Amino acid sequence: MSQVEGRNPVLEALKGKGAQKLIIQKNIKKNDKIEEILKLARRKKLPVEYVQKKWLDRESKTGRHQGVIAIVDKPHYYKLKKILAEGKQEICLLLLDRVQDPQNLGSILRTAEAAAVDGVIIPPKDSVDLTPTVRRVAMGGDSLPMVKESLFRAIKTLHDEGITVIGVDPSGRKTIYQEHLKGAIAFVIGGEHRGLSNEILNKCDSVVKIPMLGSIPSLNVGVATAIVLYERLRQMKN
Amino acid sequence: MSQVEGRNPVLEALKGKGAQKLIIQKNIKKNDKIEEILKLARRKKLPVEYVQKKWLDRESKTGRHQGVIAIVDKPHYYKLKKILAEGKQEICLLLLDRVQDPQNLGSILRTAEAAAVDGVIIPPKDSVDLTPTVRRVAMGGDSLPMVKESLFRAIKTLHDEGITVIGVDPSGRKTIYQEHLKGAIAFVIGGEHRGLSNEILNKCDSVVKIPMLGSIPSLNVGVATAIVLYERLRQMKN
Repeated sequence: MSQVEGRNPVLEALKGKGAQKLIIQKNIKKNDKIEEILKLARRKKLPVEYVQKKWLDRESKTGRHQGVIAIVDKPHYYKLKKILAEGKQEICLLLLDRVQDPQNLGSILRTAEAAAVDGVIIPPKDSVDLTPTVRRVAMGGDSLPMVKESLFRAIKTLHDEGITVIGVDPSGRKTIYQEHLKGAIAFVIGGEHRGLSNEILNKCDSVVKIPMLGSIPSLNVGVATAIVLYERLRQMKN
Repeated sequence: MSQVEGRNPVLEALKGKGAQKLIIQKNIKKNDKIEEILKLARRKKLPVEYVQKKWLDRESKTGRHQGVIAIVDKPHYYKLKKILAEGKQEICLLLLDRVQDPQNLGSILRTAEAAAVDGVIIPPKDSVDLTPTVRRVAMGGDSLPMVKESLFRAIKTLHDEGITVIGVDPSGRKTIYQEHLKGAIAFVIGGEHRGLSNEILNKCDSVVKIPMLGSIPSLNVGVATAIVLYERLRQMKN
């Protein structure tokens, strides 16, 4: 079991699969959001437990429970081959190379869900997991299929399936606007501190960069991911 | 005076204007980043003060000083008319309607600097200020001209100058890809919890939305801003 905290994240968690129980603060002031959470818990026939605020303060793992915690099934990891077996023509996958900040992983999952990404692959080491903070920030984006696998092995599998692997890195020669981003594609994006390693860059079919017009050398990884995913969506519609 | 904390933010602050002093932990392990900070401080002839780690721990306002704090001039706010008086043809401004999370304002400033935004306008009330956390997350983006002024008054001034005011809100009829985003433009973006008020929406020349393909109702405000600013850059290049 795992816990999700805060009003919006709990609401999103109740909408998704795997919610097991709602824990709510006794005598909580009922605003629209709390009413919606309680209604959804009733509709889904979830057990609801009322507790003192101090219990929530003690049990909270993010320090921002806002009077509600949902108990949900532990995160389930998919096999990459299972996602690929669904045979989606214009599949879009995201490979994250050592993203370690839970705010960033949460932000990426939230955006990826909105941008219709089909799966997110993280390596088994040097990456943050689906922690309560990640889930809170993801606002329901943690319902996306996640794979935990070596990125090198994943890239090999993707190549075997004919999926184009595009690295996003300041070292790219083309900008994201000069590259063809339609069709079956997997983006590889580097973590906060190091960008993509040379070993990973060498495995990519192409490396693209986001134009930087000021003096700051790089964008936040969640922001960079969003810009790339939405440029793909724009190209797909054209 | 105001303080900037953490290695990358301090480095960015030293590159910008207004740095007055560098405070650094005694016997800090010198990696590339620390060497770069010390070199820049020498080149700029800044006083450097060595202190015990516990002093930094006590004086830190973000809890993440990483052994370095820079003392910088207090944030300077511009008059909107002064920015407009520079007469830039394709000026791009950002109006933030009650962004309250310092992480979000910092993220927005970082992206806005990279996307060549000419100024950011925040209201005098209900908005986070240029706090140390905002500056740390902004990574130097806090060097952008900032204006603190009622958004209604700012929109009136912008209209008087013939600048198109575009709201970004899920209620928009057109997507950002269907709207013409070139030329002199000001984007109005809503804070974390409420989006844009009807009063503001009514003042906009057009309201655009970002396509949402999943079940999550909204994007993070920093992410939404990035997607819009980069779509403008793309259109400008075409």
